Amino acid sequence: MTPEREKALKNLKTAKGQLEGIIKMIEEERYCIDISNQILASTALLKKANLHILSGHLHSCVKQAMQQGDSEEKLKEIEDVLGKLMK
Amino acid sequence: MTPEREKALKNLKTAKGQLEGIIKMIEEERYCIDISNQILASTALLKKANLHILSGHLHSCVKQAMQQGDSEEKLKEIEDVLGKLMK
Amino acid sequence: MTPEREKALKNLKTAKGQLEGIIKMIEEERYCIDISNQILASTALLKKANLHILSGHLHSCVKQAMQQGDSEEKLKEIEDVLGKLMK
Amino acid sequence: MTPEREKALKNLKTAKGQLEGIIKMIEEERYCIDISNQILASTALLKKANLHILSGHLHSCVKQAMQQGDSEEKLKEIEDVLGKLMK
Repeated sequence: MTPEREKALKNLKTAKGQLEGIIKMIEEERYCIDISNQILASTALLKKANLHILSGHLHSCVKQAMQQGDSEEKLKEIEDVLGKLMK
Repeated sequence: MTPEREKALKNLKTAKGQLEGIIKMIEEERYCIDISNQILASTALLKKANLHILSGHLHSCVKQAMQQGDSEEKLKEIEDVLGKLMK
Repeated sequence: MTPEREKALKNLKTAKGQLEGIIKMIEEERYCIDISNQILASTALLKKANLHILSGHLHSCVKQAMQQGDSEEKLKEIEDVLGKLMK
Repeated sequence: MTPEREKALKNLKTAKGQLEGIIKMIEEERYCIDISNQILASTALLKKANLHILSGHLHSCVKQAMQQGDSEEKLKEIEDVLGKLMK
């Protein structure tokens, strides 16, 4: 596994633990704003994980495709990701 | 529990299941873009959960504070949430 | 005019100047990434302006509506703004 | 000028006109939420323009760099853009 994927994995496992905590907060009728802030923290962590995955992708899969001269599909994929991020 | 909190709870439990799936995808060396798209889907679900929490907050805690004439703190909290969302 | 609106006005005038600059960059065939970074800078400035407007709104219009006991519509408006920001 | 740049130019010119309108709205003390919604509309337009610029970049500059075998810098640039979008 690449270092980027390991970092993403770590982020996702932490985020999963946070979600378990947030679910408990709701069940325990904790204050709304505290819950909202926790969800924002998990959202930020998912973004970090996604950036690790995409960075790793650029420097491995996309790079290899370039070297083999068939990058069109890879470029289209990156374009689609950008489109989703910039909605 | 308010209907908004129940919806948020449902979203969060689904998101948690998705994270378990994404963690497996990484461990199984699945394709980066597929993993990235799944993370984006979970991120969207967390946003939905957060909107349920904040909507519920507006129409319960904030409204009650208004009726008791001490809304300053509640308004500040909403302002802080907006600040985080608009970073 | 409230201090918040003055700050928003200043941000918007700066952003408008930036857009004029970006339009020139495109016409002068400047490098894509430089143009993209400028657009991101203007986007951030619009977010700052919007936060000034919404903060001012909370502490004036929403607060007054609270004091007059008819805050339902104001709360719904804030909810709609949150919904747009969390799409 | 590429079709993507022309689309971006059109978006930016429209956004600039919108900003002029929003500036007037503030000067005419128009309602906060109406101003906020207009700013959100302009922000969305800037994102569209930026996506046109980045899509054009992928399929021209990045592709050419690939064909010349020196894509490292281009990949780093895309990574930086992703980082800014996912902050």
